[in-house]
Amino acid sequence: MARVLEGTQPTIENPNWNGFEKGTWSKEVNVRDFILNNYTPYDGDDSFLESATEDTDKLWAQVMDLTTKEREQGGMYDMDTATVSTIISHGPGYLDEELEKVVGVQTDKPFKRSLQPFGGVRMAKAACESYGYTLSSEVEKIFTDFRKTHNGGVFDVYTDEMKLARKAAIITGLPDAYGRGRIIGDYRRVALYGVDFLIKEKQKDLKNTSMVMTEDNIRQREEISEQVRALNELKELAKSYGFDISEPAKNAAEAFQWVYFGYLAAIKEQNGAAMSLGRVSTFLDIYIERDLQDGTMTEVEAQELVDHFVMKLRLVKFARTPEYNELFSGDPTWVTESIGGMEMDGRSLVSKSSFRFLHTLYNLGTSPEPNLTVLWSNKLPENFKKFCAKVSIQTSSIQYENDDIMRPEYGDDYGIACCVSAMEIGKQMQFFGARANLAKGLLYAINGGMDEKLKIQVGPQLQPIKTDVLEYEEVMQKFDQTMEWLAGLYINTLNVIHYMHDKYSYERIEMALHDTKVLRTMATGIAGLSVVADSLSAIKYGEVKVIRDANGIAVDFETNADYPKYGNNDDRVDSIAVEIMQRFMKKLRKHQTYRDSVHTMSVLTITSNVVYGKKTGNTPDGRRAGEPFAPGANPIHGRDTKGALASLSSVAKLPYSYAMDGISNTFSIVPKALGKEEETQAENLVSILDGYATKTGHHLNVNVFNRDTLLDAMEHPELYPQLTIRVSGYAVNFIKLTKEQQLDVINRTFHESM
Amino acid sequence: MARVLEGTQPTIENPNWNGFEKGTWSKEVNVRDFILNNYTPYDGDDSFLESATEDTDKLWAQVMDLTTKEREQGGMYDMDTATVSTIISHGPGYLDEELEKVVGVQTDKPFKRSLQPFGGVRMAKAACESYGYTLSSEVEKIFTDFRKTHNGGVFDVYTDEMKLARKAAIITGLPDAYGRGRIIGDYRRVALYGVDFLIKEKQKDLKNTSMVMTEDNIRQREEISEQVRALNELKELAKSYGFDISEPAKNAAEAFQWVYFGYLAAIKEQNGAAMSLGRVSTFLDIYIERDLQDGTMTEVEAQELVDHFVMKLRLVKFARTPEYNELFSGDPTWVTESIGGMEMDGRSLVSKSSFRFLHTLYNLGTSPEPNLTVLWSNKLPENFKKFCAKVSIQTSSIQYENDDIMRPEYGDDYGIACCVSAMEIGKQMQFFGARANLAKGLLYAINGGMDEKLKIQVGPQLQPIKTDVLEYEEVMQKFDQTMEWLAGLYINTLNVIHYMHDKYSYERIEMALHDTKVLRTMATGIAGLSVVADSLSAIKYGEVKVIRDANGIAVDFETNADYPKYGNNDDRVDSIAVEIMQRFMKKLRKHQTYRDSVHTMSVLTITSNVVYGKKTGNTPDGRRAGEPFAPGANPIHGRDTKGALASLSSVAKLPYSYAMDGISNTFSIVPKALGKEEETQAENLVSILDGYATKTGHHLNVNVFNRDTLLDAMEHPELYPQLTIRVSGYAVNFIKLTKEQQLDVINRTFHESM
Repeated sequence: MARVLEGTQPTIENPNWNGFEKGTWSKEVNVRDFILNNYTPYDGDDSFLESATEDTDKLWAQVMDLTTKEREQGGMYDMDTATVSTIISHGPGYLDEELEKVVGVQTDKPFKRSLQPFGGVRMAKAACESYGYTLSSEVEKIFTDFRKTHNGGVFDVYTDEMKLARKAAIITGLPDAYGRGRIIGDYRRVALYGVDFLIKEKQKDLKNTSMVMTEDNIRQREEISEQVRALNELKELAKSYGFDISEPAKNAAEAFQWVYFGYLAAIKEQNGAAMSLGRVSTFLDIYIERDLQDGTMTEVEAQELVDHFVMKLRLVKFARTPEYNELFSGDPTWVTESIGGMEMDGRSLVSKSSFRFLHTLYNLGTSPEPNLTVLWSNKLPENFKKFCAKVSIQTSSIQYENDDIMRPEYGDDYGIACCVSAMEIGKQMQFFGARANLAKGLLYAINGGMDEKLKIQVGPQLQPIKTDVLEYEEVMQKFDQTMEWLAGLYINTLNVIHYMHDKYSYERIEMALHDTKVLRTMATGIAGLSVVADSLSAIKYGEVKVIRDANGIAVDFETNADYPKYGNNDDRVDSIAVEIMQRFMKKLRKHQTYRDSVHTMSVLTITSNVVYGKKTGNTPDGRRAGEPFAPGANPIHGRDTKGALASLSSVAKLPYSYAMDGISNTFSIVPKALGKEEETQAENLVSILDGYATKTGHHLNVNVFNRDTLLDAMEHPELYPQLTIRVSGYAVNFIKLTKEQQLDVINRTFHESM
Repeated sequence: MARVLEGTQPTIENPNWNGFEKGTWSKEVNVRDFILNNYTPYDGDDSFLESATEDTDKLWAQVMDLTTKEREQGGMYDMDTATVSTIISHGPGYLDEELEKVVGVQTDKPFKRSLQPFGGVRMAKAACESYGYTLSSEVEKIFTDFRKTHNGGVFDVYTDEMKLARKAAIITGLPDAYGRGRIIGDYRRVALYGVDFLIKEKQKDLKNTSMVMTEDNIRQREEISEQVRALNELKELAKSYGFDISEPAKNAAEAFQWVYFGYLAAIKEQNGAAMSLGRVSTFLDIYIERDLQDGTMTEVEAQELVDHFVMKLRLVKFARTPEYNELFSGDPTWVTESIGGMEMDGRSLVSKSSFRFLHTLYNLGTSPEPNLTVLWSNKLPENFKKFCAKVSIQTSSIQYENDDIMRPEYGDDYGIACCVSAMEIGKQMQFFGARANLAKGLLYAINGGMDEKLKIQVGPQLQPIKTDVLEYEEVMQKFDQTMEWLAGLYINTLNVIHYMHDKYSYERIEMALHDTKVLRTMATGIAGLSVVADSLSAIKYGEVKVIRDANGIAVDFETNADYPKYGNNDDRVDSIAVEIMQRFMKKLRKHQTYRDSVHTMSVLTITSNVVYGKKTGNTPDGRRAGEPFAPGANPIHGRDTKGALASLSSVAKLPYSYAMDGISNTFSIVPKALGKEEETQAENLVSILDGYATKTGHHLNVNVFNRDTLLDAMEHPELYPQLTIRVSGYAVNFIKLTKEQQLDVINRTFHESM
């Protein structure tokens, strides 16, 4: 049933909207209303899907060829070192202009990475130099003498304490030397409305802001003006490719192209950590359905359009520094596309294009990008569930997030930014905050704020613990004080970063594709939760003796190994994990955030669990100094010994309401544990996903393979050019990982039984 | 008596301070304390003064030669169109390296104007083009694509109403297209402390800011970091001239040079409307006295140093646009130097160098710059008073401001920025706000917000006055409403401007030479006060009939000329001027200012009284459309018919507490009205100044000449290359004024009797 809400605007008539059911969306910007009024739910199976066309194969062969060359050149095919990337900095570029159904690349040719110094010119320079390129001296001068950068601003303001916390890696991964990302432009608006309408709406918004010039209002007004400027540049970008996008798209081909131009403008302007796409498949399906109905398109053409669109998303690349790559391995861009989910009124939002997008994993082969994310609900059509399970088993390229717990919070038009961060599309953005290392925090509690690796005072100089055997109550009381300090320092550090990001590297086009009034979240994160839970459990239920160095710093622990471990559905320890998470979140909320953003938190490490581990000493749970943490909210590898379901149950206990920025669980299971037949395997995986969702688990990366496959790929990378695996919140091309990271993946728990 | 306050810092020993009495100043930055502990008050006469040296004459001849060439080339000798001016953008430049005792020019040679696009690249471009130069396309690209400017920021935020008010000139002269100026760096600190000490103090301040990262604190911290960067550049600038200014100056020559480097850095970085110098003469006198005592300097050398320093100040030039020149005629830079005044404990702050600075008007001839400002107190030494009066009579180049009313507000180490704006040096800055046109406001009250010239609605659409004869009560009630609207719009407009000035054109080096915690004022202004007072007096005490056009807009008035006029010491009308001023100030205070700055107001027009007049229709006082307003707080020319003292008395009634940013009065008297003998003339002028000060008048420009002199200079400008006259708050070279402005000056009241 079409839901028409009464807007105050008159309905606009546009011939390009012929065939669409009108609604609020035709009076004012409201993509959700357009979708709900016009989409065609699909509960059939995957038998309608078509294979790649010859053109698709040719284009993909070209991409694979460039990929090989890039790998052979040490991970860099070409770099722009002189033209600063802006929406309109480059002329058009193509893979093969004759064959491509969707056009546009970041610079003037594919695989050539763009120059983006607004975040920091030293990073841009380092990125160039680490690949043997030289940054143009003119650009360096401009961004040193005349144009300050985000990074420059942040470091002008950081306190000594902040710099120290960063150096000691108790807070790390902060977006102070790279773009914060995690902002999803509503790229669908470009197709649905055309840019002229969007400009007019923004101009109205500018007129409707308050006349009282508070700083908030001044900034808001300047931002709107910048957004309008960016929208005009977006039109110019499209024009350089021969398209006039001032009006709405009039068919599916245009709709895909318009959406992509919006996205392309964003990645030309911003080198954000995560440049996510949103939730476009069912939206675009409406255009395909109209063309199919009109007889102007065939299924083969529809799939080809999806394939070509997805191919463009796979070409997204940024020039990044070695430090960045150490944290976020495998060159990820987080072009996250959210698929499926239910609408508020109970219909499934699965369309044929939900299938088509997943089907690209066959037509083009597997790939980490786009980061295909299924919004899972127990109520999704069974055929779609089975299809997802099948694709997961065959490709290990999908992640699942629990629509049933997100929908009540975000409605039914949200998308996932980056890995696990849900946000209402076009209405919400986030100030990304990476994460605090709680495992190190626990060591600070024991050592009175002294860093166990650097041997210098980093935290507040509290009385260290003096006893030989750790007492749970004393440790908890000191850990609480440490978290109190850490929470304040963390929020204040993020305030600096986001003030400067807004000031020196504002996301003009992405925010132009948002409502003017948006909800902002301050997205903190924690790392080492399972280390902390197990450590505290060992202290409480086992016995932990402290070994101190000559200066009295606790540098090691003798731990009785027989204590309840997180990941076995044992409430004694799982409740500790929950308690720590809640306490830290409550402490974060005490501190005023920049722009009154709403405090949120994630339990997610991406691949930084390895770096965190490296920088953290021995911990009371028995983990050795330097060993990786478990990724995200995962139990420590090898300690979740009670089977897959017990492991999942422990993680599912973490309350989403305290970590609304997401709780990441990376799950690996060997194929035979799911059953012998393909059909049974898929059914069992569906059951696991349904069960996890019912238990209010939030996120699950699903990998289905044997450890041997990975070991073989380490030996013979040339045989596995597209081998994709899910890590924490995203997927990577396995052979692009460092050896250390590959070993971390191989050492993870591969569940051999349910 | 030396006053030593106990600081918390240890006294620093520096050999360059040998011979100075220590105090708080030797523990922390406190220039005032240094002066009070070390200066030598002088109450003798001017007989010790020396004439120009041969070197001085040679150098000045060179300056006059360049001045002639500049005039012959239409007011522009040379412009830099490619090198963006920063503190360290240019190598050294000289008049004559062999002869100069103080070195340093803004670019690489004297009279070559610098390129300063941070305020606005379109203005920089217009300035180039108006003199037949072309801005470098590279600079234009950088400041269009990469580096936003102050002007760009402001216009992104302005509301339609603000733009309209600006266009209609009810608010005008706003620093949205030029630098706000009116910030006095404490350049003395460079000499007294050397730059390294100043950097260390700023670094301490950075450490001592709050750890709670509010936006205010973030901005503050970033500003301090920028200040430190600018101080390092200041050292580099000095080094390029062969000086190491990291340590304190060790003699007078270094002290003058160090102070000048500080000032030079400021004018290289900022093209502020007023780049005032502060209050350096008695400070520098301490160094001269030490050298004279040591026998390392003679009076001839002392005067030469002062002459060369002042010569450098006369070379300050900026590239400006024709619109700017229309408002502020004669190429002023407001290198205001404040001389004299009393200390809080009763000693006069007059030193021999107070005389030496004024004496440059003889050694170099008269000149508008530096803008020599005597802080007048009835208690100043009689010899100094007489000397000032003599110099005024002979040069018409001095302005006087009432130290007795400013000292209680600002202490005894304040200076005048621009014309009349007092501020404690190094502890206070101002957000300059130009002015609102109250005369036009009165017409809006009559016409219901309709602009009488543009014939469009600008103010709020109130009911216009319908009667044929204006009723005082009704007019006042509607004028009150109009002022209510205007005050809000005005403050909000200024909030936008200063937010953007801080964001895109922050005065790094000037603020580096301030305390970190400064008092900020939001300095509004009013124009047309005498027009309003006389108009309301005409309505109240005479009869004013309205003449309306076909659309009902009041376009003219039939006014009974027989009403009390402001400028004749008649309380009936003077009280109206006071009332209006107080009402408007109270309304301004209702509105929140940017950075919680303190509302202040000036009654000052500079030369914009001509432009305001042009843009304002017929007024009820009988003034014809287009005719200039009186400048500043002056009575309308020709209406102050009761003699000089009555005129001064009217102006003196305006309460300084409601216009702490200054009340400007420009006074012209013919020599014979002061007496026949030179001695008598000086005595009488002293009496006038004493009387005006006693009546709490704030400011007085003193011109002593006959109208015939000006008429002759109009005819034969070549004969009067240095003819200087005081206009509203500054002095100009008469022959640089436009014919219109010259006529305005000639038409002013020349008092023929006391």
